[in-house]
Amino acid sequence: MQLFYSKDIALGGICTLDAEESRHAVRVLRLRAGDTLNVTDGQGHLYRCRVLQADDRACAVEPEEALRTPQSPLPALHLAVAPTKNPSRMEWLVEKAVEVGVGEVTLLECDHSERTFLKTERLERIALSAMKQSLHLILPEIHPAVLLRDWLSSFRFANPTQKFIAHCEAGQPRTPLGTALQAGADAVVLIGPEGDFSAEEIALAQEQGFQPVSLGPSRLRTETAALYVCCAFNLVNDRSL
Amino acid sequence: MQLFYSKDIALGGICTLDAEESRHAVRVLRLRAGDTLNVTDGQGHLYRCRVLQADDRACAVEPEEALRTPQSPLPALHLAVAPTKNPSRMEWLVEKAVEVGVGEVTLLECDHSERTFLKTERLERIALSAMKQSLHLILPEIHPAVLLRDWLSSFRFANPTQKFIAHCEAGQPRTPLGTALQAGADAVVLIGPEGDFSAEEIALAQEQGFQPVSLGPSRLRTETAALYVCCAFNLVNDRSL
Repeated sequence: MQLFYSKDIALGGICTLDAEESRHAVRVLRLRAGDTLNVTDGQGHLYRCRVLQADDRACAVEPEEALRTPQSPLPALHLAVAPTKNPSRMEWLVEKAVEVGVGEVTLLECDHSERTFLKTERLERIALSAMKQSLHLILPEIHPAVLLRDWLSSFRFANPTQKFIAHCEAGQPRTPLGTALQAGADAVVLIGPEGDFSAEEIALAQEQGFQPVSLGPSRLRTETAALYVCCAFNLVNDRSL
Repeated sequence: MQLFYSKDIALGGICTLDAEESRHAVRVLRLRAGDTLNVTDGQGHLYRCRVLQADDRACAVEPEEALRTPQSPLPALHLAVAPTKNPSRMEWLVEKAVEVGVGEVTLLECDHSERTFLKTERLERIALSAMKQSLHLILPEIHPAVLLRDWLSSFRFANPTQKFIAHCEAGQPRTPLGTALQAGADAVVLIGPEGDFSAEEIALAQEQGFQPVSLGPSRLRTETAALYVCCAFNLVNDRSL
């Protein structure tokens, strides 16, 4: 199955796919007027649509049938991660996290961050492509970098949310993620930069109810730690057959 | 901690690091005669060594103390995976799998493989680098591509070994990996190529005792599926604090 995306798709109207989606439909897949294709709005809807005008820059489609509507919300993971020095490692992370399943990604600016800025546009394009590849119908949000200290003191998480901080500070008690993580509830997990969170950041997170977790005996790179968390979250919540 | 590797390192002798390790020690870290460094043999030993001769092509070191010796073997994962068409995706997989933890990787040649050959030398170098990065003391083996059908009929797995095949064939019963995977025992998991295993391969694997598992509701790329399995295996076996 090929999956197309338009945030504006809905029953009862004609929708024009954006340039990239139009090119893919008309130039790559050679769809013609009258052909059908599946389009999601990235919010859980999936529509079988008919091509009205096979324009390779502005392909007009008409939804004919809702194939899927949003389910009662599944537990979602909010990954809050400090960008790596090498931006390609973050791009890789976003691709893989979306494939495996993630609800939101927030970029964190930490005391030991070597990189505090990363364009979200490129990450959003990668997220969209990975959503289509993996046939997800929900497009995860990518939030621009925010100072961890500000975020911790201002952000309000939905309840019940499990809150974890995965730090590497030796000598501090941490629970293995596999033991701490419970199925059936949202979770937000903080992943630090190459130089780890500062002691002050760890203390602040704990004051805000974040439980320290360990991700096993290996020393994981930032992006590997983040993906490990995504895999763990989806593993404990997987009830598929 | 910086970790060096030499397969020949042992107490009671002088060892010469290979060209790449020597360059790293002498040119990059600027170690000099008399300095100490930690060297593993990739078999679970770790030695504190003293530099005898700071040659940037053949650095001579003398082990002074065994810091770690092999533990009673932990459960190990044997990942058997069909190479992806794009070799960089396999290189990425090996890096991440070694970081997270994997015992052996076997490349599989399957009925639907688009790529049946991949140089193991480059993957071995990546595995070595990832082992050092993540401070593992065991260097995973990378086995060259083998025909899945031959491998299934000839390979003898140690007991007790959990054997799984992660295929995407619709309509066949599969157990979620998180339910099927038990802690405390070795596991071998088969991951197919972009075009999945053939029905014949799935049947053959089942005859050989491989249990079909699913990796969640997403359609995962080959390398993502393989890393998901590594994360799952390490998560259920993680008893670290």
